[in-house]
Amino acid sequence: EFKEAGREFRQDVYSYNDWRWHRESGHIASAISSVFTSGVGKAMWRETFFVIATAAAVYLYNIGVPVLAAKTAASLPIVAALLGRLPLLHLSLLPLTLSSPALFLLLVFRTNNSYDRWWEARKVWGGVINASRDLARQALALVRDAELKKLMVSQIASYARVLKYHLGPPTPEARDLLRNELVDNRLPADQVRVIMEAKHKPMALLGLVSASLHDSGRTGLDTVQASKLDQTLSLLTDYLGKCERIVKTPLPLVYTRHTARFLSWWLLFLPVCLYNQLRANWMIVPVSGLIGFFLVGIEDLGNQIEEPFSILPLTAMGTGIQQSIFEAL
Amino acid sequence: EFKEAGREFRQDVYSYNDWRWHRESGHIASAISSVFTSGVGKAMWRETFFVIATAAAVYLYNIGVPVLAAKTAASLPIVAALLGRLPLLHLSLLPLTLSSPALFLLLVFRTNNSYDRWWEARKVWGGVINASRDLARQALALVRDAELKKLMVSQIASYARVLKYHLGPPTPEARDLLRNELVDNRLPADQVRVIMEAKHKPMALLGLVSASLHDSGRTGLDTVQASKLDQTLSLLTDYLGKCERIVKTPLPLVYTRHTARFLSWWLLFLPVCLYNQLRANWMIVPVSGLIGFFLVGIEDLGNQIEEPFSILPLTAMGTGIQQSIFEAL
Amino acid sequence: EFKEAGREFRQDVYSYNDWRWHRESGHIASAISSVFTSGVGKAMWRETFFVIATAAAVYLYNIGVPVLAAKTAASLPIVAALLGRLPLLHLSLLPLTLSSPALFLLLVFRTNNSYDRWWEARKVWGGVINASRDLARQALALVRDAELKKLMVSQIASYARVLKYHLGPPTPEARDLLRNELVDNRLPADQVRVIMEAKHKPMALLGLVSASLHDSGRTGLDTVQASKLDQTLSLLTDYLGKCERIVKTPLPLVYTRHTARFLSWWLLFLPVCLYNQLRANWMIVPVSGLIGFFLVGIEDLGNQIEEPFSILPLTAMGTGIQQSIFEAL
Amino acid sequence: EFKEAGREFRQDVYSYNDWRWHRESGHIASAISSVFTSGVGKAMWRETFFVIATAAAVYLYNIGVPVLAAKTAASLPIVAALLGRLPLLHLSLLPLTLSSPALFLLLVFRTNNSYDRWWEARKVWGGVINASRDLARQALALVRDAELKKLMVSQIASYARVLKYHLGPPTPEARDLLRNELVDNRLPADQVRVIMEAKHKPMALLGLVSASLHDSGRTGLDTVQASKLDQTLSLLTDYLGKCERIVKTPLPLVYTRHTARFLSWWLLFLPVCLYNQLRANWMIVPVSGLIGFFLVGIEDLGNQIEEPFSILPLTAMGTGIQQSIFEAL
Amino acid sequence: EFKEAGREFRQDVYSYNDWRWHRESGHIASAISSVFTSGVGKAMWRETFFVIATAAAVYLYNIGVPVLAAKTAASLPIVAALLGRLPLLHLSLLPLTLSSPALFLLLVFRTNNSYDRWWEARKVWGGVINASRDLARQALALVRDAELKKLMVSQIASYARVLKYHLGPPTPEARDLLRNELVDNRLPADQVRVIMEAKHKPMALLGLVSASLHDSGRTGLDTVQASKLDQTLSLLTDYLGKCERIVKTPLPLVYTRHTARFLSWWLLFLPVCLYNQLRANWMIVPVSGLIGFFLVGIEDLGNQIEEPFSILPLTAMGTGIQQSIFEAL
Repeated sequence: EFKEAGREFRQDVYSYNDWRWHRESGHIASAISSVFTSGVGKAMWRETFFVIATAAAVYLYNIGVPVLAAKTAASLPIVAALLGRLPLLHLSLLPLTLSSPALFLLLVFRTNNSYDRWWEARKVWGGVINASRDLARQALALVRDAELKKLMVSQIASYARVLKYHLGPPTPEARDLLRNELVDNRLPADQVRVIMEAKHKPMALLGLVSASLHDSGRTGLDTVQASKLDQTLSLLTDYLGKCERIVKTPLPLVYTRHTARFLSWWLLFLPVCLYNQLRANWMIVPVSGLIGFFLVGIEDLGNQIEEPFSILPLTAMGTGIQQSIFEAL
Repeated sequence: EFKEAGREFRQDVYSYNDWRWHRESGHIASAISSVFTSGVGKAMWRETFFVIATAAAVYLYNIGVPVLAAKTAASLPIVAALLGRLPLLHLSLLPLTLSSPALFLLLVFRTNNSYDRWWEARKVWGGVINASRDLARQALALVRDAELKKLMVSQIASYARVLKYHLGPPTPEARDLLRNELVDNRLPADQVRVIMEAKHKPMALLGLVSASLHDSGRTGLDTVQASKLDQTLSLLTDYLGKCERIVKTPLPLVYTRHTARFLSWWLLFLPVCLYNQLRANWMIVPVSGLIGFFLVGIEDLGNQIEEPFSILPLTAMGTGIQQSIFEAL
Repeated sequence: EFKEAGREFRQDVYSYNDWRWHRESGHIASAISSVFTSGVGKAMWRETFFVIATAAAVYLYNIGVPVLAAKTAASLPIVAALLGRLPLLHLSLLPLTLSSPALFLLLVFRTNNSYDRWWEARKVWGGVINASRDLARQALALVRDAELKKLMVSQIASYARVLKYHLGPPTPEARDLLRNELVDNRLPADQVRVIMEAKHKPMALLGLVSASLHDSGRTGLDTVQASKLDQTLSLLTDYLGKCERIVKTPLPLVYTRHTARFLSWWLLFLPVCLYNQLRANWMIVPVSGLIGFFLVGIEDLGNQIEEPFSILPLTAMGTGIQQSIFEAL
Repeated sequence: EFKEAGREFRQDVYSYNDWRWHRESGHIASAISSVFTSGVGKAMWRETFFVIATAAAVYLYNIGVPVLAAKTAASLPIVAALLGRLPLLHLSLLPLTLSSPALFLLLVFRTNNSYDRWWEARKVWGGVINASRDLARQALALVRDAELKKLMVSQIASYARVLKYHLGPPTPEARDLLRNELVDNRLPADQVRVIMEAKHKPMALLGLVSASLHDSGRTGLDTVQASKLDQTLSLLTDYLGKCERIVKTPLPLVYTRHTARFLSWWLLFLPVCLYNQLRANWMIVPVSGLIGFFLVGIEDLGNQIEEPFSILPLTAMGTGIQQSIFEAL
Repeated sequence: EFKEAGREFRQDVYSYNDWRWHRESGHIASAISSVFTSGVGKAMWRETFFVIATAAAVYLYNIGVPVLAAKTAASLPIVAALLGRLPLLHLSLLPLTLSSPALFLLLVFRTNNSYDRWWEARKVWGGVINASRDLARQALALVRDAELKKLMVSQIASYARVLKYHLGPPTPEARDLLRNELVDNRLPADQVRVIMEAKHKPMALLGLVSASLHDSGRTGLDTVQASKLDQTLSLLTDYLGKCERIVKTPLPLVYTRHTARFLSWWLLFLPVCLYNQLRANWMIVPVSGLIGFFLVGIEDLGNQIEEPFSILPLTAMGTGIQQSIFEAL
């Protein structure tokens, strides 16, 4: 499916020049033409097609029934009479205008709630980066034993990798990738094994860091210092829990589905209610299509960012942590 | 009642594949047909029926009165005259359009405030998970006495179970379930008894953990370490209080009820104001029904998530805590 | 005044069964009929009456002037001529529809800001409960001297009582009630006297707790432990300040009053603008009355929850703290 | 200027009875009449006058041009012909109704963002009060040397005074007032001098408190206790920074100005678009004036509370801190 | 490009007098005229021109086709017949009014989300200022070795400079400026070199501060004090991460682009839908232009503040930190 496959290309990491381009790229003319080639456009062709098809059906029905009735009037008077009794599909626009503020408010609030989830997820990963760096900085400054210091740096740099795996699809490829990343982080083979065998990998890794940290004979830390470092471990536990919260709990399904149903029925009635309101009746087809495209697009973007981890650049962030920690070493 | 019985089936825990399905399931055509089979549809049949019945009554009255008057004109001229003086039920649409933005804003803000309660409840339970895991991790790394260590792990794993019971209905079945869960967590019989007999069970359990933690002869912790662990206990106390706040305090009833009354009167006037505005007057019945269904649905979804604990998967979360803690042991 | 007297009956504390009832009670038919008996209905009869009276005056004037002119045409031609020149009170609906989105957005945002104050106040009191419990738990686990332990528990349990008095009306009855509650909490007579004589009672009580806590000879706490407990005292100071902030600072009066004035003028014009727009002109009276009732109700509910402490169940919460703390003792 | 001079009278500190009055004062009839005497009314006479004048000009032009053309038709046919070709100023109402939701949403969101700044400022000052009290409480309980204790209390009580001066206009009167307040707080003459001579007075005072606090020979505090007290000093530094952030950084000027321009142009078109839409054309003058008054009022209230410190009762709060701290001494 | 070049002039730092001016400057008349000279006006000439050109094209086409058909009727009957079959570009206004609430809500929510990013960025920089000052204050009060004290002050004062460079464009000029600022902060040459050579400069600087801080032989701090200071270092690491989060992660591009496309298509249809709705058809050109200008302006202001660091006065803030820290020294 295009929709799913395209998600990983949405993992943007911006630099200064991207922002310059970003501020420029809002030019109206380009936005108009990009609709047809955009990812959203491709992702929503089914929905847009459905709206257009409905509108076309309404149009053809309303045009066709009288024509058929006229054509069959002479040859098949019974059919003509039946056709003549069929009601045409049109209605006042009032039901739509009356209900639209409620629908649009619901739609935009729902999308905004999805956005808040996405932004919170990004904040949590920012927190993982910060806490990893901070723990590494403290370990480098305070831990006495050089071997243990290196081990702790490897463990800390591995955390983002393990967490990324924990939040993604548990495929064999992802497993192999994780193992390679752990080895790449210079984690000893036995610790790699412990992690790969654990059911809850991030907790297992945190247990290993915890054991390193409280091995006071080798760290040379007193309990005040160890408590300070342990505080950062508590933070990492906390971020883990926050990630799990977001990934395991969608927006209340009653909320999401009621919005989807309200929108779908509204769009179903759209061509019926627009009929006889525009300059020419065939125009209900493109007009319904456009309005449908943009409204379904609002809902779809809410859906896209509701589960944020598969569109956040977790791999790039993990590499960033690794680099800055190992540079400090 | 369907509404209440169905609540526990709303306790969603999503995994990677659920999200894939979730992003796909927004297809318009399926959303249109699912209205009639959906939980919301079943939960709100009384409200929807009321709106439809009102609209039908308005329609029949407006159609019936002139017909009756005509029929009785000859036989019962007095009745006919009386019927002729009865006003028909119709009104301009203006009162509805004028007031609808206020109603819809109130409705959507109220639903959003319910959503915030739901999400805060989920965050608090995420916090319970994190603090339980973090306390267990620290106890495992620092407590010296092996017996005490096991006891503390059992106590910590029991906290989510006790809290779940504390927030739910105090039925005998829930009591028995709690007792079994505590035994299942390997809590000693005397501590199980203390908890089951306490009026405020979570506080009693926290008192037991507190006693274990500050038994410095067996823990081998100095006061710095004990303070660090006690900080996590303070967090658990805090989460307990937050849960109680949400479960004991609904949205201000003036807020909820004023919204409900505004909506109800608006819907009462809906068929009267739509009369003579649509292509055919019988259409006020389905149109009122649909608009009523979607608007009452917004209010109902706010009601459903206002008390979040009975739709959050507390049992699954408690099992998750138990598993990850005992795995670390 | 009904409005003020009724406030204390709004102090809801919900339990599981209340929630079941709450989710059921949203039935439309009952919401329709409860308007006339509701607290809001009683509280706002003056405002509703004003709107209805204005509408009736507009109606009678517009109906009466031509009738009077006709009646006096023969007998008092000068009066009739004057009456004939009086303009009728009607206007297009456009000024109202044009300005209504601004008014409604302002109204609903203001009510939501009041709601945020109310919810923050509830959070702060939840925090008082949590911090009191947590401090008691720590004191019970760590303080050595049994007498001092009992004294500290009494002091901690008294805090919510003193704070409630501090935030309410300083009547002699409230004073007597506070004294009884303090005695009921087994606080020694001399400490009761110190508190009752202090101008700022919560600070005086915190000073007493502080003195108990740092009496290291009797507590047996080292400075690490005392600092941990003192941290909870700092929290209680913080909550005190937050309560004072909410109770001493209303929403900016420019905000509240501009909203009230905008709404009042809008309602003043409502019957004038609705005239000639409905099926029959006498209908402006009930229609204006209903719209006025619901809009003023939104503003009034914002007013009701802007000062939250007199509608929060502070007494019940204080009793809850007392019970759970003394149970632990 | 009335607007600026009136700001200090907006520094409300509410007590219980003010709230009773506040809930009563929302009576519609009084809100209607208070428009003309209100502070907002006076503050915005220029804006309201501008809107009324524009509307009057539009009205007079549209009325006057045909009259003039008729009058000059005989005597000055060329002028009459020219006048006859002048277009009348009227337009459909559609451009206004089409754009108004965007304008009103922008306006109300901007006002709400100003409100958030105001409320944050109030929270920060609440934090200053709490931290000052808490620091004084700890110093009183823990510092050994009686002289130093008194000095620290004076220093702490002075902080709010110095911060108030720092955020206000640096006039000589404000300088003298500050000096008197410091002396009134029993601060030694040499420390008063140090503060008055420092460029950044709050930082200088915090430096003095810091020096007192870490003078371990006199305080008798060990490093654990000193760290606990220093934590509160860090809080005071933090609140200082938050105040400076709010006072130095307005809402993005592009935001504020775009809103102001959008509103101004909308109001400029208002009489032109209302022309021929009301019952009588002279009515565009009062209707434009009223709508303009209420819309500009929304923007103006956002402006009034965007810089919150000059409308917050900083002097009263400083006195409150001083009293409660010295009472504890 | 004007748009980019003008960004640094938007770095406002307000003082008391600026606020007085700010509250005055909202006068309507000046806001009306400033549209043409404003930065937004210049920045958006392309977009505004596009809307105006589209409207003009629609107007000319609709006017020109019948004229051409008439002129060619005699000479080129085939062309005239073809021209006569060309449809005129006009449509009902309904599609626009129906979809506009959704568009405007989306637009204003998006702009508000950009504002939240901007304000968070400002808060984070406020936090950098506070933490830098606080760390300097503690170092000055507690560090024993005078040389080390000076070094730490230099390091702390350099942090904001390094962070500013890290967030801006990595040009050679910026590099040179940073080096000069570091030297100006009296940082030793070898430490300047370490920083300039590091890939991640802020982390390198924090590593140097960390090394200074934990050099217990020279600082004379015990581990409690060092932990307290290190806590502030952790804060600085945290702020660094938050800045990187904002600068590396734009709003989800699906969100931004869907809004831009919706707006662009809406504006494309604006002149077509306004045709035949205004008093004279040429008026669609200025009316479309004005509405387009204000709507695109809302989107553009969201774009301008989405990346906040290039419009925040980072240089002025860095100088402020430097001054207040060195004054304390």
